[in-house]
Amino acid sequence: MPELRKPYLLYLGDAQYPTDAKTACGLRDWCRTDVVGEWSLPAATVSVGVPRLSPADAAAQGAGSLVIGIASVGGKLPDAWVPDLLAAIESGLDIVSGMHTRLTSFPALVQAAAARGVRLVDVRHSDQTFPAGTGAKRTGMRIATVGTDCALGKKYSALALTNALHARGQKATFRATGQTGIMIAGSGVAIDAVVADFIAGAAETLSPDNDPDHYDVIEGQGALFHPAYAGVTLGLLHGSQPDWIVLCHDPSRKTIEYRPDFPIPPLGEAAKHYLQAARITNRAVRLAGVSINSSSLSDTEWDEYRDVVSRELGVPVCDPLRGGLDPIVSRVLGVE
Amino acid sequence: MPELRKPYLLYLGDAQYPTDAKTACGLRDWCRTDVVGEWSLPAATVSVGVPRLSPADAAAQGAGSLVIGIASVGGKLPDAWVPDLLAAIESGLDIVSGMHTRLTSFPALVQAAAARGVRLVDVRHSDQTFPAGTGAKRTGMRIATVGTDCALGKKYSALALTNALHARGQKATFRATGQTGIMIAGSGVAIDAVVADFIAGAAETLSPDNDPDHYDVIEGQGALFHPAYAGVTLGLLHGSQPDWIVLCHDPSRKTIEYRPDFPIPPLGEAAKHYLQAARITNRAVRLAGVSINSSSLSDTEWDEYRDVVSRELGVPVCDPLRGGLDPIVSRVLGVE
Repeated sequence: MPELRKPYLLYLGDAQYPTDAKTACGLRDWCRTDVVGEWSLPAATVSVGVPRLSPADAAAQGAGSLVIGIASVGGKLPDAWVPDLLAAIESGLDIVSGMHTRLTSFPALVQAAAARGVRLVDVRHSDQTFPAGTGAKRTGMRIATVGTDCALGKKYSALALTNALHARGQKATFRATGQTGIMIAGSGVAIDAVVADFIAGAAETLSPDNDPDHYDVIEGQGALFHPAYAGVTLGLLHGSQPDWIVLCHDPSRKTIEYRPDFPIPPLGEAAKHYLQAARITNRAVRLAGVSINSSSLSDTEWDEYRDVVSRELGVPVCDPLRGGLDPIVSRVLGVE
Repeated sequence: MPELRKPYLLYLGDAQYPTDAKTACGLRDWCRTDVVGEWSLPAATVSVGVPRLSPADAAAQGAGSLVIGIASVGGKLPDAWVPDLLAAIESGLDIVSGMHTRLTSFPALVQAAAARGVRLVDVRHSDQTFPAGTGAKRTGMRIATVGTDCALGKKYSALALTNALHARGQKATFRATGQTGIMIAGSGVAIDAVVADFIAGAAETLSPDNDPDHYDVIEGQGALFHPAYAGVTLGLLHGSQPDWIVLCHDPSRKTIEYRPDFPIPPLGEAAKHYLQAARITNRAVRLAGVSINSSSLSDTEWDEYRDVVSRELGVPVCDPLRGGLDPIVSRVLGVE
């Protein structure tokens, strides 16, 4: 994955529903200073509240890439968007997409990009090759977010932890393993697109040797208890060789999303399994804390839930949106 | 992976060392009736003891494919072999290779194969796409071989179990997940070449619904304790949803091969971790037995070792080459 060219122009296509603009919202929220504006078709009814700029105006303001900020149904890139993408290419912008459909499957885009000397970057796909994992210990500290399921806050928690470490004056880098994370960071590895034999090796590549007091905060993927994706989760965990793990959970979810026959284990058991798996490549791994998406709980319920889980696991229990993750950072820094 | 065209002509290139011919020996040992003969360059000094036949003669005797039976250093396919491969194509044989170098990277082979209407099959690579795993329960029984490390008998044990089931009059199919296994079976999925997101889905595809009294015996890959390959192991295990697992081990190995800093856990612990992981997709999974490569042990040592492990784990402990795996099959069939 080449380093993405920031800053970004966010493209919203013909989006009708705010939820379609999840990727654009993530970029606005997590790397606002890297966003110059947004652009869309006349049919669009959605805005993410940043200045409206044509590709030419965005380029004039220094934009490096147009980023497709929409997760359309089925991940297909509609033909109706192509004229806007061609205009962006003409203005000298790279095009960055996390869609299933590859940008390179549109001959018109390929031709125009080649002629203009800009790149078409499909962050969901990986043409990069990686070595097999070695398991060799790397310098620097690593924190991995892991979860009881997919899509419950592992990226969000890793970004919030990185910010909380920065706020304490620590050296820390968010390491992205999924498409939105990669767009936010400007680099990373779409770990689920790697050839199976090289999952751990790709994860090793993602967080190389660093200063002893530097923290890599690695975005987790999937879940060890997920019937489809646990292999990705385990390989990523092994290659990350974390010193600390942060367990992410949503208490409203009792079973794996879309797979109601697969129960989510109790948090204590989930933490035990993650630590056991992580010990393969780092015997000193510890649980730093639990990051909860508590949006389903009232204030009273959240207070009670937090106390119960915290007593049971003996670690800080936080919600990044309800008080932040600072207690977890305190534990990591040994200043509890 | 298309079904391979049997029977095979084994190609030995310019092999100088019997160990280079591991693939050819595996095919001779496990599917002798599918092998019409062998062919090699004049420089070769190795034979696997089957009739010597030119590609033209092999084709005349009904051969469907020339299979490269050599694992060369670095997995590269030497240019010196190309004339023999062209002669095989000319005779109407498919070419089957497990090398890292793709057959399709030789334009002369691609051209000749297209002109003659035969296939170039790279079993190490996968252009097949798979769905994500669903975790849905499939009909039929499944036995998975798992191991404490790579390369210590998981394929061998799965083949021996399949034969032992057949000898008892049971319906059983060996399901191949690695290149030599695929050549032996004539079909399968090179699971480590699948895109990470689809490991479990590919494994689900490999052992579809079957008769309730039919056994799929699935070749394991890697090891849960391996710093590079555990992701493949776990995804394959989940997708296989085995009713029984057979744990394969070599007591002379104390650490993971090529990774001396990674100890192999005690057998009881290894079995516990595999059962725990397998329960995600099959809560009824049980340990069927332990398959040992006991070549490092004297007869007395083996007797003692077998008794100790068998007492500790409460299951049959066997060596496929030293008495066979029949006690494990008895346990699976409930006729202990």
